[in-house]
Amino acid sequence: MKNKGQKLLKKAKNIIPGGNQLLSKRSEMFLPELWPSYYKKVKGCSIWDLDNNHYFDFCGMGVTSCVLGYSDQYVNKKVIEAINSGNMSTLNTTDEYELAKLLTDIHKWASMCKFTKAGGEACAVAVRIARAYSGKDQVAICGYHGWHDWYLALNISNPKNLDTQLLPGLKTVGVPKSLSGTANHFFFNDKKSFDEMIKKSKDLGVIIMEVQRQTEPDISFIKHVKNVAKKLNIVLVFDEITSGFHENYGGIHLKYNITPDIAIFGKALGNGYPIAAIIGKKKIMDISQDTFISSTMWTEKLGFSAAIATLKKMKEKGVQKYNVANGKYLKTKMEKLADKHELNFSINGFLSMPNIKFNYSNSDEIMTFFTQEMLSKGFLAGGKIVLSYKHSKKIINSYIKSCDDVFKTISFFIKNKRKIPLKGPIKHNSFQRLTK
Amino acid sequence: MKNKGQKLLKKAKNIIPGGNQLLSKRSEMFLPELWPSYYKKVKGCSIWDLDNNHYFDFCGMGVTSCVLGYSDQYVNKKVIEAINSGNMSTLNTTDEYELAKLLTDIHKWASMCKFTKAGGEACAVAVRIARAYSGKDQVAICGYHGWHDWYLALNISNPKNLDTQLLPGLKTVGVPKSLSGTANHFFFNDKKSFDEMIKKSKDLGVIIMEVQRQTEPDISFIKHVKNVAKKLNIVLVFDEITSGFHENYGGIHLKYNITPDIAIFGKALGNGYPIAAIIGKKKIMDISQDTFISSTMWTEKLGFSAAIATLKKMKEKGVQKYNVANGKYLKTKMEKLADKHELNFSINGFLSMPNIKFNYSNSDEIMTFFTQEMLSKGFLAGGKIVLSYKHSKKIINSYIKSCDDVFKTISFFIKNKRKIPLKGPIKHNSFQRLTK
Repeated sequence: MKNKGQKLLKKAKNIIPGGNQLLSKRSEMFLPELWPSYYKKVKGCSIWDLDNNHYFDFCGMGVTSCVLGYSDQYVNKKVIEAINSGNMSTLNTTDEYELAKLLTDIHKWASMCKFTKAGGEACAVAVRIARAYSGKDQVAICGYHGWHDWYLALNISNPKNLDTQLLPGLKTVGVPKSLSGTANHFFFNDKKSFDEMIKKSKDLGVIIMEVQRQTEPDISFIKHVKNVAKKLNIVLVFDEITSGFHENYGGIHLKYNITPDIAIFGKALGNGYPIAAIIGKKKIMDISQDTFISSTMWTEKLGFSAAIATLKKMKEKGVQKYNVANGKYLKTKMEKLADKHELNFSINGFLSMPNIKFNYSNSDEIMTFFTQEMLSKGFLAGGKIVLSYKHSKKIINSYIKSCDDVFKTISFFIKNKRKIPLKGPIKHNSFQRLTK
Repeated sequence: MKNKGQKLLKKAKNIIPGGNQLLSKRSEMFLPELWPSYYKKVKGCSIWDLDNNHYFDFCGMGVTSCVLGYSDQYVNKKVIEAINSGNMSTLNTTDEYELAKLLTDIHKWASMCKFTKAGGEACAVAVRIARAYSGKDQVAICGYHGWHDWYLALNISNPKNLDTQLLPGLKTVGVPKSLSGTANHFFFNDKKSFDEMIKKSKDLGVIIMEVQRQTEPDISFIKHVKNVAKKLNIVLVFDEITSGFHENYGGIHLKYNITPDIAIFGKALGNGYPIAAIIGKKKIMDISQDTFISSTMWTEKLGFSAAIATLKKMKEKGVQKYNVANGKYLKTKMEKLADKHELNFSINGFLSMPNIKFNYSNSDEIMTFFTQEMLSKGFLAGGKIVLSYKHSKKIINSYIKSCDDVFKTISFFIKNKRKIPLKGPIKHNSFQRLTK
């Protein structure tokens, strides 16, 4: 078998636990033992693997980060200018101010910003600020907010709490047991679960939630959450790390016209360059001066420069409108394909980054087969599609054409109750220890 | 007053709490109201401010990160290559593996690595892993290890605990009170304080310490810590974020031939590009597969590429030897100057990044004056000098020559009991809220 990526991955697992730094980028989450795993080059929505195979990326675009497309020329130009004038110094960069200005201009309800490099740490900063302002330690959680202690604490009292918020099997080993009881949770669009959580909670100082993840929000639900937060002096935090700057220019909360006290951005903000932002109301954000939140690398210039360039290009080109329009087109086409081949198939979530699913008891097996077959046709494809500004109609049509073939095959196996011919193991759908 | 930097800083404080993301880069820590604050360009050890004034940096080189000098041509070249082939993707970068290989080759006792972008989050990862492996939540602290809850928890039971470990006045607001009692501390080179801490502690799973900060370690002290850790099944973590790759090629623990279970690197590792590493023994690091530690931006390529290039150049050029030799030269010269002007002055700590101090009751006032006068002579100068590979003998001599003048003036004011003529407020020496 010629797969340099898998060969390297085996070596990597010996010196890097799990092989890399992100669960969502593990080969095992897509096509165990057969995924190309490493890239040599990316450009637009093209990826070349270590064997120089070319693929179009319909599988996440860097875990939803590269909305403009990979290695965007304009953003790169601005980043390289920043490199040539120096990315780090004893003094500060003016780009830090410029980005803060830009984000508070886009989100008029917010007037102060803090920055980090990674999304998980941005959530930890937001929770620190919210706890400091409210003076109350309890956090209510709805959605995915990273790897930090404050979040995983939810699983101490019940190891299944995060099953529905993130993914099954997450362990809390190494999270201080004294944090047990500091985190509560509620379910998306589920007023009853929220009200019950509120009733049970004492000392609740923070509500942190994603405004939209798989399904669209019920506006009355979000409004209810906001009203209760206001009434009980709870700081409301919208985690927009995944949702921000995909469907509209800013946080998705702008689309629904509901504002929080704090919002968090990451991923798409820098089009793949590390930068995350915490924006919020002045009276709340300013409390961060009363607690120690400080890190050398947060002052480095490239993330700021990349984000400024990314936002500028997004706005000028109307990138979100373009991606959403293409997403609508893709959804309609895919649903037609499923009808044509009589597959129980769904495509939903954000239009510009939909989730697809084969609704069968062996859905993971079918998805693994889908990934396997699409790979051989030159596509990285799985359960999560992310469209970028470089996903032209032509490229989308070529994906749909290949889907047509693979859907036909899948349909044949299902109808004839044949075993799905996988060349390797079924993909993981949960947090699992890698044994090799 | 012509100071574009201070003008911008005033605007920045309206939208960024404290004005920037790092306490150690605040104007108030050097020369309140008069510090240039922002840079337009850096190169070598030169900085140009927003008014195009030129300075040589004898004031930290980006909080100790730029050991090769600012905007190093070779590192930049490798980073720009990484940008042109794409810094982010759905697949992983081979540079992640290469850097893990390099770090475990340099540190033979370690065989597994994890990576983050910032140092504070790297410490949080190390503590999670150490707690998970030992199965015990208590952490013993000696030194500075970032802004996260696990560390600031030390100040919940006694708000003065961190005064000596980091700086006075650090507040714990926003840190969950249930973490009270999870952190203990001991003092550097102080066996008695360590033994007392051990006696008082129950459930101690982690000892995290800096191997060297201001003073050289007493080897018998570090060996004692290591022996106790081993005996009591406590994971020993060396935080080398500041100490690593300055005096020798690797962690400073290699110089003293004492190995920990886990070591953490940052800052100098990427010569100013955001990258941090957690390296450790296989049996310990591998436990991180049993807990969720995962972040999208940790997979981004530039930090890996920058670190590989930085380490390669450091090794080829013998950068550490060069910097240490220059540090010895500087120390001797500075001590002679102090003698000449009969100043009670000390220069100690790492040879390549010494701390200087005027030993008087009004030491902060004198240091502020030193910074003020050196600034007018074209130097960023304060209590912390960091030498880089671009600090030539010639540049060092020009710094010494200017010090000669300023020391003479300081000596005159002290001898004649005259008021030190500061043009602005005295610098901060602790964690303080900024009021404007």
